[in-house]
Amino acid sequence: MKVALTKVTMVSESTLKEPIVALIRRHGATGFTLTKVEGEGSRGVRASDWGGRNVMIETIVSPETADALLEELSSAYFEDYAVIAWLTDVSVLRGEKFLRKGS
Amino acid sequence: MKVALTKVTMVSESTLKEPIVALIRRHGATGFTLTKVEGEGSRGVRASDWGGRNVMIETIVSPETADALLEELSSAYFEDYAVIAWLTDVSVLRGEKFLRKGS
Amino acid sequence: MKVALTKVTMVSESTLKEPIVALIRRHGATGFTLTKVEGEGSRGVRASDWGGRNVMIETIVSPETADALLEELSSAYFEDYAVIAWLTDVSVLRGEKFLRKGS
Repeated sequence: MKVALTKVTMVSESTLKEPIVALIRRHGATGFTLTKVEGEGSRGVRASDWGGRNVMIETIVSPETADALLEELSSAYFEDYAVIAWLTDVSVLRGEKFLRKGS
Repeated sequence: MKVALTKVTMVSESTLKEPIVALIRRHGATGFTLTKVEGEGSRGVRASDWGGRNVMIETIVSPETADALLEELSSAYFEDYAVIAWLTDVSVLRGEKFLRKGS
Repeated sequence: MKVALTKVTMVSESTLKEPIVALIRRHGATGFTLTKVEGEGSRGVRASDWGGRNVMIETIVSPETADALLEELSSAYFEDYAVIAWLTDVSVLRGEKFLRKGS
C-alpha cells in the first residue's frame, strides 16, 4: 500500500551538513540521503567560492513535518547562508517506515 | 507534447546496484540514472557500515510499470536489505522514449 | 509562504554541461544544481562509451519558463545528443528567489 508523503530537498554549502542533519533528526525523520553537488544560487555565490562542494540532503517525512522542517531551516539559515529548499509530493511503499514513531 | 509518467527512485547499499538494474531492465524501462549517495535509513544502518557508498537509481516509466517495479523491489529486498524507494509524478517531453516498445 | 514552481531536471553527457548552463541563464533562472551521475538511456549509449560521466542539472523556475526551457533543450539537442529531461512540481519557501526579476 502506497502512502503519500513529502520529500524535503535542501541544497547548501557543505558547512551546513551537520546542522541540517541535526535539524532532520530533531524533527523525527527516520532517514536521509546525501549527495555531493555543485551549484550556483540566487545569492550569486558559485560553488568554487564556497571552499568545497555543496551538499544536497533529502528526507521523506509527513507533510506536516515537511512544513515544520522548512520553516525552521528558513528561519535559521536563509538569511545568512546559501541554502535553498523545496518540497515534492512522493508516494512510498511501506510508508510507515518514514513516519516518526508515535505520530 | 508532454506526457505524464512516473519516476521511480531507489536508494540502496551498493551491492544491490546490479540486481536493481536487472530488475529495471526486466520491466522494460529504457534507461536509468545512477548517483552515488550516502545515507542513513530507518534500519539504523549508517552508510559507513555498509562497506561503501550507497547508490540512488532513478528510472522513468509508465505509472503501471512503476507500481510493478516497486512491488517486486519490495518483495525481493525490503525484508533483508537497507533499501528505500519512492514514486514521483513527472512530465516528460517526447515521453514515448521512456515507454516499453509495444506497450 | 510556499510558492508552486517547477523543477527542470536535465541529464546529459558531460560535454553538454556548459551549453545547458548557458541555456538556463538565458531563460533567467537564478540558480542550478549539478550532480555527476552515470546512466544508460534510450539511445542505447552507456555512460562508459561517452568518455566520462554524465551530468544531472536541475533548476527551479516558473511553469512557463520550465516549458520554454524544455522546448529549447529539445529542439537544440534531443536529435543529436543523449539527453533526457523532465519536469516536477515543487513547493518552495520564499519562492520569489527563484523567479526572474521583472517577471
